[in-house]
Amino acid sequence: MIDQLITEIKRKNAPVVVGLDPMLSYVPGALKNKILSQTGETLEGAAEVIWEYNRAIIDAISELIPAVKPQIAMYEQYGPAGLALYERTIRYCQEKGLLVIGDIKRGDIGSTSSAYAAAHLGRVQVGQKVFRPFHADAVTVNPYMGSDAVEPFRRVCKEEGTGIFVLVKTSNPSSGEFQDRLLDPKQRKTSMEEETEKGRASQTDEAADGKRITVYEAVGQMVNTWGLDLMGKSGYSEVGAVVGATYPEIGARLRRMMPRSYILVPGYGAQGAGAKELGVFFNEDGLGAIVNSSRGIICAWQKEAYRHFGEENFAAASRAAVMDMIHELRMVLENK
Amino acid sequence: MIDQLITEIKRKNAPVVVGLDPMLSYVPGALKNKILSQTGETLEGAAEVIWEYNRAIIDAISELIPAVKPQIAMYEQYGPAGLALYERTIRYCQEKGLLVIGDIKRGDIGSTSSAYAAAHLGRVQVGQKVFRPFHADAVTVNPYMGSDAVEPFRRVCKEEGTGIFVLVKTSNPSSGEFQDRLLDPKQRKTSMEEETEKGRASQTDEAADGKRITVYEAVGQMVNTWGLDLMGKSGYSEVGAVVGATYPEIGARLRRMMPRSYILVPGYGAQGAGAKELGVFFNEDGLGAIVNSSRGIICAWQKEAYRHFGEENFAAASRAAVMDMIHELRMVLENK
Repeated sequence: MIDQLITEIKRKNAPVVVGLDPMLSYVPGALKNKILSQTGETLEGAAEVIWEYNRAIIDAISELIPAVKPQIAMYEQYGPAGLALYERTIRYCQEKGLLVIGDIKRGDIGSTSSAYAAAHLGRVQVGQKVFRPFHADAVTVNPYMGSDAVEPFRRVCKEEGTGIFVLVKTSNPSSGEFQDRLLDPKQRKTSMEEETEKGRASQTDEAADGKRITVYEAVGQMVNTWGLDLMGKSGYSEVGAVVGATYPEIGARLRRMMPRSYILVPGYGAQGAGAKELGVFFNEDGLGAIVNSSRGIICAWQKEAYRHFGEENFAAASRAAVMDMIHELRMVLENK
Repeated sequence: MIDQLITEIKRKNAPVVVGLDPMLSYVPGALKNKILSQTGETLEGAAEVIWEYNRAIIDAISELIPAVKPQIAMYEQYGPAGLALYERTIRYCQEKGLLVIGDIKRGDIGSTSSAYAAAHLGRVQVGQKVFRPFHADAVTVNPYMGSDAVEPFRRVCKEEGTGIFVLVKTSNPSSGEFQDRLLDPKQRKTSMEEETEKGRASQTDEAADGKRITVYEAVGQMVNTWGLDLMGKSGYSEVGAVVGATYPEIGARLRRMMPRSYILVPGYGAQGAGAKELGVFFNEDGLGAIVNSSRGIICAWQKEAYRHFGEENFAAASRAAVMDMIHELRMVLENK
């Protein structure tokens, strides 16, 4: 995944990923009513509405950007029909030459993570036949359960050439509650810790040096380690990180801790971060980060700046918003 | 959810939940081949095989137990057809009088968690019609992103009378990597922390007392807080916790920290914990915990102790395994 992503970022000169996180409320009333009057007000109908909306936007923006990031929750809310739509959206984007990062934030004990990894990045066998149910190019992963929750994803990445982005420091306001807690530099073994000693073999030494690190930094260290045997030819690894644009100072620190990991940066636009804070997420080579915008792009037609397109031209409004975002990011990189 | 769960636990005298985490490899060959020869080797066929397997086991055990816990990953691996099966399994269990805890471990920024909460515990609107896509009675939630990832689930619980179980200390070997890290008792504000100050308003004081706590204890404190305005008539809250049976000493400590939270205890049986370690998870009233077994029950026919049932009687083997587990837990509670 990672080498192909970098190739496409360079070719399109756009370190941008568009979040395909549609809500029914984003869809212009005329389009919504037209489809629902044919399908009835059902979950399947809702999925059909979102499909037409997604497709028009993808058609309008695919030549400009390297990748999209569908948020599976927005599809899951429509039940199995929504998940069929998620799969259909992924396939359509890939046909259009886009890489797809499934924003699934899964993570569980080994055997369960294996099922998630097979479903989203790998293969599932039924008798003699083999299927790729959701076949994204990369997915986001939640690290709270530790290495053995991440390992099955890494294994599938090795087999399939796919990638992951591990949550390190998320963009939401309460991300600090657990992620920002400082760890004790003088952590000593207690009986309770010995109980779980085996699982902690990969604990790093930084805290032992007397330097205080946070939970998100402990995760960042692991992300760096998890990527070491999954290096692409580009020098970047298949194990990336999610670090919110809303915390640029933290972003700068994590950038240095995980030099070979691509950082997927959410929170630009609707969540409040502007372009000027984004420089810190990139390496000196101008690579190393890909910035996500969701609502700011797919819901552009509802925003003051793009309202003149009119609701029937919602896809053109999205295209204009993508071009503006790409322009902003090029300025960031030129001024870096 | 919680009052109904406690009523059923008392009525059936069984603090037991069975994990419906099926794999194709668990299904006896004759049954699997019979169905796949009709459906073809497809994802839909795999879902049909698992459906017949689930249904036979549910029929055999539903009168004995209060609740089941389907692991959504095991369904998700078969794509949209698998998620339709997940929904069908939940509905069937509820018709049989069982409470359903969806093991989904979701958690994301506010608007995304809202979509997950609506999908799994609440309602989704399409035009004038309202749907309950997956309609579990409770789900598991991942806390890594903090309060605003959990809040939408709490809001839906209030509206719908449903519940959540938050991951605190998971049962897997590497759960300690992040969850067991000791927090710095002398945590002071740095500029980076101030950056996220708003999100940290609910930080507790324990570390400031000079007492060292771990990440999982910080989460446990929050679970206790999150439950305060979601108390049932039973005196237990709709906000429970997941604490692995594999760490009984930690379980005892968390039991005291979250006295009004039900603890969902995975890891019994296949993951290595025996019954004698389970007493610590219960309160003095004999309540406060529900112990999960998955493979040990639904795959009992493959185990030495139940092999004499024969593969065609796999459901009877599961029933015998449930009865043995209930007996063990009754002994635990009598000796407590």
